[in-house]
Amino acid sequence: MSEILKLTQKLTSFRDKRDWQQFHNPKDLAIALSIESAELLEAFLWKSPDQVSIEKIREELADVLAYALLLAHECKLDITEIVSAKIEKNGIKYPIATAKGNAKKYNET
Amino acid sequence: MSEILKLTQKLTSFRDKRDWQQFHNPKDLAIALSIESAELLEAFLWKSPDQVSIEKIREELADVLAYALLLAHECKLDITEIVSAKIEKNGIKYPIATAKGNAKKYNET
Amino acid sequence: MSEILKLTQKLTSFRDKRDWQQFHNPKDLAIALSIESAELLEAFLWKSPDQVSIEKIREELADVLAYALLLAHECKLDITEIVSAKIEKNGIKYPIATAKGNAKKYNET
Amino acid sequence: MSEILKLTQKLTSFRDKRDWQQFHNPKDLAIALSIESAELLEAFLWKSPDQVSIEKIREELADVLAYALLLAHECKLDITEIVSAKIEKNGIKYPIATAKGNAKKYNET
Repeated sequence: MSEILKLTQKLTSFRDKRDWQQFHNPKDLAIALSIESAELLEAFLWKSPDQVSIEKIREELADVLAYALLLAHECKLDITEIVSAKIEKNGIKYPIATAKGNAKKYNET
Repeated sequence: MSEILKLTQKLTSFRDKRDWQQFHNPKDLAIALSIESAELLEAFLWKSPDQVSIEKIREELADVLAYALLLAHECKLDITEIVSAKIEKNGIKYPIATAKGNAKKYNET
Repeated sequence: MSEILKLTQKLTSFRDKRDWQQFHNPKDLAIALSIESAELLEAFLWKSPDQVSIEKIREELADVLAYALLLAHECKLDITEIVSAKIEKNGIKYPIATAKGNAKKYNET
Repeated sequence: MSEILKLTQKLTSFRDKRDWQQFHNPKDLAIALSIESAELLEAFLWKSPDQVSIEKIREELADVLAYALLLAHECKLDITEIVSAKIEKNGIKYPIATAKGNAKKYNET
């Protein structure tokens, strides 16, 4: 079994033992993901790079990933497949020639 | 090589061809992750479950995962390891006996 | 003096007494605003409307507004003016005839 | 009439002409606020301070404030009152003596 699938099973098993699947509709999972990514961002707030706690990043990034995996599971999306497809799509949106060394969004002038 | 590592290599290869590693400091990666999770949330805004576009979820969840993988890479964090450690930690924070069928946060009364 | 100006002065006075203006660059203020809006969102997570705590909304919405006022102050933006201008702009983007009873974004089909 | 009340009335009038009050439940308003604060944050992404567009800040901060006012209206909260109360509360949480020049959160060591 793939490692992503194994992680997802650990997460759904944790959830099911607590009868939490009833709360895990896609909308609330997306809200939870958004909240966790803000908590991750808090690791950097008012701080210079050397003041940031790697432990805080570790904890909050784990939460972000947990909800991302649960949402993918709920929506029957394959993570390897959707990320690979997006990379390909972005290759067209941001051709190397024009995007090189330039962080502008494709619709920014 | 593991599938997460393979995905991460696709992402860093895409980035390096565009000389974007100069922008990818952890703080801006965390900001980007937060922005993408808000775009994901937009799929659900003002909508009932049957109105939500799975295509929009697919696209935005892929972006969320891409930045999560890039941030993990930048911070030298192993995704399988940090998510597994968090599940274990949450097992202590939310014992089955008290958490069953109850979505309250551990510090909520 | 206008009430918005008075509130802003209370906020900057609070801040200056603590020597916090050194941390209040626009980027970190925008990050703080984003974090507070996620904490506000947490009031609704996994909850039906009747389970939501008005006290939590009250607290977090106050934080959101505080950072919004501080960011406006830092960027020398007049709140009444920018919100009024945006309403006018949105009147063109969302004409009553086509937008009536329809929550779709102007670029959504 | 106070300027905040006037702004709120402009916003609810805009909304009511489009029959959008049906979508404006507190949960979706809080989601919208969170999305707009992420769009505001996008003004700063991958950018040094001198590259930030004040026009983008202006636009997105206006959206943040619009949803904050609409949510306050929906929840019957008085903005001047809740922000003033929060400032007072924070005065206790962050006494000048210990908070001076120190951006640490009250529960951070």
